[in-house]
Amino acid sequence: MRRSEATGKYTEAAITIGELGEFGLIAAITAAMASAGADAVGGPAGSPVLVGIGDDAAVVSAPDARVVATTDMLIEGRHFRSEWSSAADIGHKAAARNLADVAAMGAVPTALLFGFAGPGHLTVEWVTEVAAGVAAECAAAGATVAGGDTSSAETVLLAITALGDLGGREPVTRGGARPGDVVAVAGTLGSAAAGLDLLRAGAAPGSAADLVSDVVSDQVSDLVRAHRRPSPPYAAGPQAAALGATSMIDVSDGLLGDLGHVAVASGVRIELRSALLAAEPIVRVSPLRQAAKLLGTPDWMRWILTGGDDHALVATFPPDVAFPPGWTTVGAVVRGLGVAVDDDVWGDAGGWEHFRE
Amino acid sequence: MRRSEATGKYTEAAITIGELGEFGLIAAITAAMASAGADAVGGPAGSPVLVGIGDDAAVVSAPDARVVATTDMLIEGRHFRSEWSSAADIGHKAAARNLADVAAMGAVPTALLFGFAGPGHLTVEWVTEVAAGVAAECAAAGATVAGGDTSSAETVLLAITALGDLGGREPVTRGGARPGDVVAVAGTLGSAAAGLDLLRAGAAPGSAADLVSDVVSDQVSDLVRAHRRPSPPYAAGPQAAALGATSMIDVSDGLLGDLGHVAVASGVRIELRSALLAAEPIVRVSPLRQAAKLLGTPDWMRWILTGGDDHALVATFPPDVAFPPGWTTVGAVVRGLGVAVDDDVWGDAGGWEHFRE
Repeated sequence: MRRSEATGKYTEAAITIGELGEFGLIAAITAAMASAGADAVGGPAGSPVLVGIGDDAAVVSAPDARVVATTDMLIEGRHFRSEWSSAADIGHKAAARNLADVAAMGAVPTALLFGFAGPGHLTVEWVTEVAAGVAAECAAAGATVAGGDTSSAETVLLAITALGDLGGREPVTRGGARPGDVVAVAGTLGSAAAGLDLLRAGAAPGSAADLVSDVVSDQVSDLVRAHRRPSPPYAAGPQAAALGATSMIDVSDGLLGDLGHVAVASGVRIELRSALLAAEPIVRVSPLRQAAKLLGTPDWMRWILTGGDDHALVATFPPDVAFPPGWTTVGAVVRGLGVAVDDDVWGDAGGWEHFRE
Repeated sequence: MRRSEATGKYTEAAITIGELGEFGLIAAITAAMASAGADAVGGPAGSPVLVGIGDDAAVVSAPDARVVATTDMLIEGRHFRSEWSSAADIGHKAAARNLADVAAMGAVPTALLFGFAGPGHLTVEWVTEVAAGVAAECAAAGATVAGGDTSSAETVLLAITALGDLGGREPVTRGGARPGDVVAVAGTLGSAAAGLDLLRAGAAPGSAADLVSDVVSDQVSDLVRAHRRPSPPYAAGPQAAALGATSMIDVSDGLLGDLGHVAVASGVRIELRSALLAAEPIVRVSPLRQAAKLLGTPDWMRWILTGGDDHALVATFPPDVAFPPGWTTVGAVVRGLGVAVDDDVWGDAGGWEHFRE
């Protein structure tokens, strides 16, 4: 709403962040985050944020006397496209990527710093919706927005830092997998990658290409939604650490690529079974089959094995572990090197090496 | 160096980060930081970094059970210009901005996360020199590089997060100044702003305009150096907290602007004395006079009062404090609101309000 000096009436003309200026924008972002995140912005009773937005730095409780910290940038055109994701989606996704990395160490997310840069012609409404998305995702993970930074830039950029607490547990790194361990997944695989392919093909519900019948649109909508706003299984991270997980990683680059990092860091070979992977609850089988049919790409295993943006957690555990609901066994750790699916080795070059042992 | 496949000879053709790829770049950055920062990269004995570069997140010691955290973005063309600063300078400056914010809370910097984005045509050498500058500045502040992120982007962007430990002290916020307190500065004021004006005018030593005689070039070189690579007084931050500082801020936007934040947060009026400010050791008097003469701008107090990039610390203390070397009294806290110099009030609009009380 903007008041005309000539008529005294309010109009719907959007105020830009260039017009509002830095300090006004920080105030607007802080207010948007406060209402979106309930108590997810700086300083309420019981919050881990002891000093929040508005000082030189935040002060965050670290009861374990160690803090888990990770940072990640999202850049328009590379990590998201404004025409495919709403402002709120972009905020949710940026926060989720970082909060999932904290969970993947076995920690509970505590706080988040939100860096935002963009051109002056962005509307305040758009930017505050991004910020509200960040705060809402924080609240979903049990974390609080503690601070941030704003700057002008040619393209939209989000620079997020997430912090977490280990609660007395040892951090679960990529390097502890041992032969004899079992491999298990929490969360979903393949949905976000299929959703992105649907968007690229213009085959998403509501897209101009209108390739989607009403019958399948509900099914594939779930996949597009998974691309826009992933739902990492945050609680499964500390749960895995408590269960004695020997290694863990957030699936951000794809299951095979990320397990490749675990295999190298641990000096082991990881053997996966496709029949265990390509099943509920890890995979949304019916929507993936629909999407594959719609796009004419019969190889839907590719989404499951190489799609990353669902931010599932994959971890290795001692063989005698008793899994609670949420974790599904998908393979085993053996002596050797690399990652194999049904005994086919997946190579660094991004393809099947078909090197059978 | 690059080996020609045709001749087998090595040439000086620079390898770009686009050619090297993400994982190669991370390895090159990690190696450059390790040699530049001595023990300033992840995990050596005694380091606060328990899990460093190469996992989903870092794990950093937080012995105080609270962690100080701040994030800041530096964007090419807005926060630095490659033609005015070397790659190492840019890295030093990006780290210094964040580490100074940690010190301004009264904390000792412990760790830093380094986010880097840039176009694929950048040389690996340039990027690793930026990274080495970050690591060297960390080492100067006693901190360790714990992790980071890399991405491609149209322009160069650094997204830094710094962490710190309070060592049992209470954080020194902007909100605790009380009437009767004294105001003191650690570090220098005005040098970086004068250096930037010299660069803008093409009047820096070695610049094409060649306005600088040998006699004055040594003097003004110090100012240009202060712009390119500030030296925040890191140790003075925790020292101020131990001395009982009631408020503190890092001078990043200019002394008057930043003390304005303290005045608002504390609900006080801060009165400065120009004779105390415009003197050694806070100000490099002779170089500033030389620069003012060179540029034909007699108002060199403007650099001292509104120049920010030296990253001095300004704090308020109880009146009976006994200052150690490094801190200089520059004024007093009284009842009222705002910031005044020699009884002239500095207004929000960026000019003197000349409102005398």
